[in-house]
Amino acid sequence: MDDPFVIVGGDAAGMSAASKAKRENPDLEVIVFERGEWVSYAACGMPYYVKGTVDDLDDLVAVTPEEFREGRDVDLRTNHEVVAIDPDTQTVTVEADGEQFDQPYGALLIGTGARAIQPPFDGLDLEGVFTLRSMDEADAIEDDVSAHDLETAAIVGGGYVGVEMAEALTERGIEVSIYEMLPQILQPFGEETASVVEDHLEDQGVSVHLETAVDGFEGDDRVDEVLLDGGDRAEPADLVVVGVGVAPNVSLAEEAGIELGPTGAIATDEYGRTNCDDVYAAGDAAEATNVVTGEPDHVPLALTANRAGRAIGTTVAGEPTPTGGTAGTAIVKAFDLGAARTGIIDEERARDAGFDPVSVTIEAPTRPHYYPGATELTITLVADRETERVLGASLVGRDGAKRIDTVATAVDAELTVGELLNLDLAYAPPFSPVWDPVLTAAKVLSGTLE
Amino acid sequence: MDDPFVIVGGDAAGMSAASKAKRENPDLEVIVFERGEWVSYAACGMPYYVKGTVDDLDDLVAVTPEEFREGRDVDLRTNHEVVAIDPDTQTVTVEADGEQFDQPYGALLIGTGARAIQPPFDGLDLEGVFTLRSMDEADAIEDDVSAHDLETAAIVGGGYVGVEMAEALTERGIEVSIYEMLPQILQPFGEETASVVEDHLEDQGVSVHLETAVDGFEGDDRVDEVLLDGGDRAEPADLVVVGVGVAPNVSLAEEAGIELGPTGAIATDEYGRTNCDDVYAAGDAAEATNVVTGEPDHVPLALTANRAGRAIGTTVAGEPTPTGGTAGTAIVKAFDLGAARTGIIDEERARDAGFDPVSVTIEAPTRPHYYPGATELTITLVADRETERVLGASLVGRDGAKRIDTVATAVDAELTVGELLNLDLAYAPPFSPVWDPVLTAAKVLSGTLE
Repeated sequence: MDDPFVIVGGDAAGMSAASKAKRENPDLEVIVFERGEWVSYAACGMPYYVKGTVDDLDDLVAVTPEEFREGRDVDLRTNHEVVAIDPDTQTVTVEADGEQFDQPYGALLIGTGARAIQPPFDGLDLEGVFTLRSMDEADAIEDDVSAHDLETAAIVGGGYVGVEMAEALTERGIEVSIYEMLPQILQPFGEETASVVEDHLEDQGVSVHLETAVDGFEGDDRVDEVLLDGGDRAEPADLVVVGVGVAPNVSLAEEAGIELGPTGAIATDEYGRTNCDDVYAAGDAAEATNVVTGEPDHVPLALTANRAGRAIGTTVAGEPTPTGGTAGTAIVKAFDLGAARTGIIDEERARDAGFDPVSVTIEAPTRPHYYPGATELTITLVADRETERVLGASLVGRDGAKRIDTVATAVDAELTVGELLNLDLAYAPPFSPVWDPVLTAAKVLSGTLE
Repeated sequence: MDDPFVIVGGDAAGMSAASKAKRENPDLEVIVFERGEWVSYAACGMPYYVKGTVDDLDDLVAVTPEEFREGRDVDLRTNHEVVAIDPDTQTVTVEADGEQFDQPYGALLIGTGARAIQPPFDGLDLEGVFTLRSMDEADAIEDDVSAHDLETAAIVGGGYVGVEMAEALTERGIEVSIYEMLPQILQPFGEETASVVEDHLEDQGVSVHLETAVDGFEGDDRVDEVLLDGGDRAEPADLVVVGVGVAPNVSLAEEAGIELGPTGAIATDEYGRTNCDDVYAAGDAAEATNVVTGEPDHVPLALTANRAGRAIGTTVAGEPTPTGGTAGTAIVKAFDLGAARTGIIDEERARDAGFDPVSVTIEAPTRPHYYPGATELTITLVADRETERVLGASLVGRDGAKRIDTVATAVDAELTVGELLNLDLAYAPPFSPVWDPVLTAAKVLSGTLE
């Protein structure tokens, strides 16, 4: 390959690919174009900057631009925006400092990420109304909270960002309300887990408003109210964070004739290849294969982006490497609780994928009754009735939410409930009861399958 | 089956089988003969009774005799010792209150457990010298510590019991020394993990003497010295706990012509059946199949006993159910550390089983660098060079030792290192770095396999 490996976007997927490609093949020229200033930052850490757990926004940067340039010999160009891709000539058009130039590529990775969805709310441009997708936005929210004596905040959307920001802003002394259109928060976690989190949020002073549509925001210059129920009702809000989900940034790809998949993200094969020769896509802009359904899925999470980027870097360096699939595994902290999920939990989604889902929800302690500090874990475990294959799980508790990894592994390995039940998991009183809660869930689910 | 289901031994395997058989088939008569007083107790909790974490020895009893008799309709007879089995007539001979009687069985489960190995030490019968296998012994140690103003304790053997008792006795204000014949403590955990634990024990004031053979104990009535190096050296010891391992209680089985396996424990098939018709064995007296090697193994741990008992109860009640194998998964607390292991770690053992082992040891944080509370986990990951199958792992750290379950699941599911590396494990800053330490270990091991 004579022309360089060009990467569009300098975050998780892009920088993982750049680093790995250079490590595998130091002679390969790697150029990364990033339209902003920040590269390789931990977006998932941003709520903890607002909360005050993380002192400095720079702490969220995993690897600095200097380290990429000097330590890893990656030609990283910030404030460079790729405005067009031409797959026929294998060239990208780049804009920087008001000028445009063309850059040929031997291989191209599109890692353009995703953006916060902005619903058509009135008053989105009022002062004090934010989304939380970029480091600059995290910075702006923190500045705003520090600069004003805010009493109330409205969070629109009860997803990860909503729940994490509810904790962060409560910690900053603000009275927080979450407004969620659906009958539950944390939709991908299933209603049993969500319900435990909702109760805990209320216990911590957060008002959780379910099945509540937001229409917009009002105020003079600065927001002071959130409008609800078609505008019939208003609640006070000195600060608003809109976190209703993200959409993949695909316009650059689309305009170049690169195919999108059924989810609206860029379609890729198991090596992260798009329909255009030598063009790869990874991260929040791209689809990944769901390990349960085998179908394309769009789960914009950090590990999937890092891993796919790393695999593509290896492939471009000369050793074809599959990107791996996604089980949609996720974990979120909500004050004293950890909630986690993996695989397919939603019954309708399971049926759409051809399964006949059966599930149980149990409560089980994380330690034996006699050992101090035992807490309850609520686990929902889902399997297919005919094959008894484990499809997914969700769990929540004060301790032990990383136990979801056991189920994530079982889901990926296509274990049955009986095989899950027979796993030799670690037991000693300070760590677990004899039957780990995951095994207890498998026991109960196994009983319903007979 | 006209004759009852007879169970010899009323602990984990026996009582799990009794309860499950009655639940599956309430009409089945189930008789349990237990030669002692205690049934269904958590032996693994005993060090925490000595430590003072658990107030009352009765707290370690999972289910009381009354609950078994009245709630579960199990004919539980304590202080009844089975002294002979006759597989031809399907009868056991029972001794109680100095009398003997015969009891016919339709099915028999041998759950006679294991006993502490008593090496031929001089002075084993001195006051203040204990093993820790039974509830009565735990009681006696606690009484002894409470009754005397003890300054020093010697622990012979650096296995689980040794490490847990070192913590317990240190907590009781005693200066503890561990004497271990091998070059490391916690032999099944591999030397990297053991070395971290050894350093931590020393930091906590425990003297760890490796490659040190104990010859016996001396004192007038009560022990006051432990003899070392062929008797040339003596160290003070006001209390001694001998924890050099356990041996399966197989004499009853052996005398009845029931076959033992290569480990010296009772040989069983995948349903827990012995070579005699309708005779099962489970728990610490029996072998289980190692899920990595497929060979018989003897891992006397609680979960294996409970699960095999439960499966045999189901089988005897009419539905044949495999007992499941063992990965030898174990976890142990040593003061502020958790150490855990699963599968095959020892290189020689791996080679004996036909593998070509390759391993790495890494240190990785349990959280991102910017999130408070991150601690290092040291992980050793072992795979077969040719097939790249994950064979086992060992890990140790202040937090997150239950992550061994991810590897235990991968080992059981026969995943390769590449498949382990592609697992979708849960990430959020309060719980894990983007690449969980287990994935980081897989990354590094994958690199050495190329």
